Amino acid sequence: MLRHPDSHFLHKLADAADAQTLPRFKSSFVVDCKNDPRGGFDPVTEADRAAEAAMRDIIARDFPEHAILGEEFGETGKSDAQWVLDPIDGTRAFLCGMPMWGTLIGFIERGRAISGMLSQPFTGERFWADETGAWSGTKAKPMSLATSKVDDLSMAILHTTSPEYFDDTSRDGFTRLSKSVRMTRYGGECYATAMVAAGHIHLNFEPVLESYDVVALIPIVERAGGLITRLDGGRPEVGGAILASANEALHYAALELLNF
Amino acid sequence: MLRHPDSHFLHKLADAADAQTLPRFKSSFVVDCKNDPRGGFDPVTEADRAAEAAMRDIIARDFPEHAILGEEFGETGKSDAQWVLDPIDGTRAFLCGMPMWGTLIGFIERGRAISGMLSQPFTGERFWADETGAWSGTKAKPMSLATSKVDDLSMAILHTTSPEYFDDTSRDGFTRLSKSVRMTRYGGECYATAMVAAGHIHLNFEPVLESYDVVALIPIVERAGGLITRLDGGRPEVGGAILASANEALHYAALELLNF
Repeated sequence: MLRHPDSHFLHKLADAADAQTLPRFKSSFVVDCKNDPRGGFDPVTEADRAAEAAMRDIIARDFPEHAILGEEFGETGKSDAQWVLDPIDGTRAFLCGMPMWGTLIGFIERGRAISGMLSQPFTGERFWADETGAWSGTKAKPMSLATSKVDDLSMAILHTTSPEYFDDTSRDGFTRLSKSVRMTRYGGECYATAMVAAGHIHLNFEPVLESYDVVALIPIVERAGGLITRLDGGRPEVGGAILASANEALHYAALELLNF
Repeated sequence: MLRHPDSHFLHKLADAADAQTLPRFKSSFVVDCKNDPRGGFDPVTEADRAAEAAMRDIIARDFPEHAILGEEFGETGKSDAQWVLDPIDGTRAFLCGMPMWGTLIGFIERGRAISGMLSQPFTGERFWADETGAWSGTKAKPMSLATSKVDDLSMAILHTTSPEYFDDTSRDGFTRLSKSVRMTRYGGECYATAMVAAGHIHLNFEPVLESYDVVALIPIVERAGGLITRLDGGRPEVGGAILASANEALHYAALELLNF
């Protein structure tokens, strides 16, 4: 019988990651190397590695039988239960001083996402899902997340991170979808998917996600009442081109335009 | 002799605006009107109007001789000294639950920006400039803002809010510039210009700004060491296509590509 983490444990991991990421966010670069902002030291890479190492230490202590896939240190261990970690999802936003990045902590069993956490320590926000539901706020005072009931594409707000991530096929699909919605917005990173779960936006499409970019977000969207799948409608745990939607009506209407 | 406000007064206006905007940010829509997210009540418009009204009351009391231009209530009074207010710059970001919007408070004398404030109450950040310098933090504990010294386009990070705001000419220029920089990012709204002043990004181009979208930001960028002008190199107070840059070298190299 595989042991599952509870939400208290998700917060414990997020606390450990926050302690490494937040002090380095908006920190100064060494200005001597004036044309190499990464000269001297690189706070993003430092924060990324330190946060993943801190989370790995805690998992190894409390769930030594679990496997881990991390963006920084790869795959370790072998088990039907696996942690999927992206210590800083949205490193470019982090670099720009924009609080749209997040620490993503996902847990899967036999390839299926069970629970997840997005921590954005600069705004002080957490979004998480355990087997009881999807939540935001603090662990002491969780508030239930619920997606929007808007089910007409013409009233929907669509997000994607950057037009530069599209290839010709996904750009065509996105352009079709964009013409059918109320508003298209850019630059949201993982935070935009949290805003789908929180009911503020209706569709988020990202054409190229890795497994560690998406696993943590799956239970957050699903247990808030939304859908998150690959473009072919299949399970999103493996990554690829991923659409998150507030509800079924929007999801299938949007998939049809994206896949036309 | 025209009286000028000090930074204490800028914070007083920001406090009054924050009290109207923050409680309405991420607030729930009436879900009965499920395909009209503006059905019932519209927190963005409510917050916009209430924040401008609150700031106008304070200005009328403390500087009754000054004129005011506000995004919501237009132009009132006539004076060489004018307040330029955008209670919520980035209403679309506000609507999406994304903390990239800001309250912009600018003060101009004979058409020239003298002081300015950007308040982002959800992250708790303020960026302001008075006649002594450009600052972030709190009024009790201000920290000096300084733009980046990166002066080579190939190392620069470029921001713009949305590719949808371009016309054919500005899109061509932006595409040329985008190919010459290290990284192009989207979705930053007024917050991205604050990140130019804070040294995290290097260039922010917005093809269509109104006077009230830019006046408050001018002294913040200039007194942090940056440049902010129209595409033709002229003063930005009147709005138009506006480029903000970390320094002269970047600014003129970028203008050349944008105007080619």
